[in-house]
Amino acid sequence: MAGTAIFNSSFSFRFSRIPTQAQAQAPSTVPTSLTPSTKPIPRPHWASLHTEIETHLKQAIPMKEPLEVFQPMHHLVFSAPRTTVPALCLAACELVGGHRHQAMAAASALLLNLANAHAHEQLPLTDRPKPRPGPAHAYDARMELMTGDGLVPFGFELLARADEPTHDNSERILRVMIEISRAVGSEGLQHAQHMRNTLESDGKELSHVESMKRVAEKKEGGMHACGAACGAVMGGGSEEEIERLRMFGFYVGMSQGMLQRGLIQEAKEMKNMALQELQFFKDRDLHLISTFINF
Amino acid sequence: MAGTAIFNSSFSFRFSRIPTQAQAQAPSTVPTSLTPSTKPIPRPHWASLHTEIETHLKQAIPMKEPLEVFQPMHHLVFSAPRTTVPALCLAACELVGGHRHQAMAAASALLLNLANAHAHEQLPLTDRPKPRPGPAHAYDARMELMTGDGLVPFGFELLARADEPTHDNSERILRVMIEISRAVGSEGLQHAQHMRNTLESDGKELSHVESMKRVAEKKEGGMHACGAACGAVMGGGSEEEIERLRMFGFYVGMSQGMLQRGLIQEAKEMKNMALQELQFFKDRDLHLISTFINF
Repeated sequence: MAGTAIFNSSFSFRFSRIPTQAQAQAPSTVPTSLTPSTKPIPRPHWASLHTEIETHLKQAIPMKEPLEVFQPMHHLVFSAPRTTVPALCLAACELVGGHRHQAMAAASALLLNLANAHAHEQLPLTDRPKPRPGPAHAYDARMELMTGDGLVPFGFELLARADEPTHDNSERILRVMIEISRAVGSEGLQHAQHMRNTLESDGKELSHVESMKRVAEKKEGGMHACGAACGAVMGGGSEEEIERLRMFGFYVGMSQGMLQRGLIQEAKEMKNMALQELQFFKDRDLHLISTFINF
Repeated sequence: MAGTAIFNSSFSFRFSRIPTQAQAQAPSTVPTSLTPSTKPIPRPHWASLHTEIETHLKQAIPMKEPLEVFQPMHHLVFSAPRTTVPALCLAACELVGGHRHQAMAAASALLLNLANAHAHEQLPLTDRPKPRPGPAHAYDARMELMTGDGLVPFGFELLARADEPTHDNSERILRVMIEISRAVGSEGLQHAQHMRNTLESDGKELSHVESMKRVAEKKEGGMHACGAACGAVMGGGSEEEIERLRMFGFYVGMSQGMLQRGLIQEAKEMKNMALQELQFFKDRDLHLISTFINF
């Protein structure tokens, strides 16, 4: 499974557009800092977008009966490590001319799917060779298992309900559902977890650069690609805008994934590629979207 | 949480329509066997509908790369214990005048959600007090955990894709997604699992009739209510037809749930209530739908 075969069909176009290493290392014409130097503008940050999504979700998940179900649901959603995926969804929506509210349900569904993935990664299973590091479990394993299970359909429900009351947005919503299902499913995040588990079971740590890249392509890369594409879809972006933002998200995620795994040079290359994708949008307001590469 | 409070809002209407015990035990005007005695007609059976859904799913889940992901997916989907929920979805669709193909994606999504619920119920967790009975696990726990996780979004994806290529069915599809999410989620199946776990953790076996009923209302009752309602929605049923079929499904599921828990008299009462709901459809062809009460 080398080369392009590790990408599923919806991602395979990437390789034809990946620049050569020389191109990637060439100076980008897009400035790395996009904040004008003449007058200080409060710099937007992805964390403020994330807070908006959490506020939305706190209203969507009321603390009501049965409390024994909703309390752990709150816990899993709001204690999961933050990722930039949901916020990127909102930023992509605005970049193509939409309002972030249009992408709020998609961002929420992404957050819920990622919260489930995180909770289930942490579950103490009898045959898991070593527990993952992390904070003490607030609930027992069965509770975290089934609560996580409830988050995924609830995310799709939020998306389905986003078509009400006008019923004029269903095509975008259904498309985003397919995007999310593929990103988290058997050829996406699920495959990444599988690859990681296989490597761990074989007694191999993820030290090999190629293995790390393959996991990151499905995990950080794939989820950010999905987040950005979903935002562009919900904001009414053109097909080209959607695919450009998908590429941007992919490289943003890859850059983060490489950085987390200590691959500094690779992270830098991916960041440059992300910047190149933004050139397509150079006439737009890039303040918000650039927060995802100025980390 | 006694009385009506154990039903979530979408189910609360039930109690107002539940007949008194005397009414429930009164002879029904709908014959229990609906096969004409004059000429032998091959009696339809829910299992043949189930086989059709499995055939559909075998095409939808191709055995392809990555095999290490798709093989366990096949296994979890096709080795899970059969329930009558997905088949009831098709039968309800036909009862309201639709063709079963219209409800195939909804039935598939129901089957996938139930397969995940079953797989995760069987997971060997470090703090599960006693393993559930069942066949030996074909895959390790991590694999069954993440494969189950992939089934749920895939079910929603199948539903989303069912709107293609004509894009004229989205309102029904989105409605069915909300129905399924609620049936499996925090106020449905997830709550049933929680109630059962709590009873087990407290050292109480599920011997108390009231406890068993409460679990069955969310589990067998709730899932069959959802299956029948989803079929009626996809088949273009009227609001009254949808709600009648929801009630029918609820009583079918409750009857099964009571029977499985050894409550013979209660099962009989629920079956009678299911029959009464069918009176509303007495001018239709009841052969297919009656397979769900002639067990």
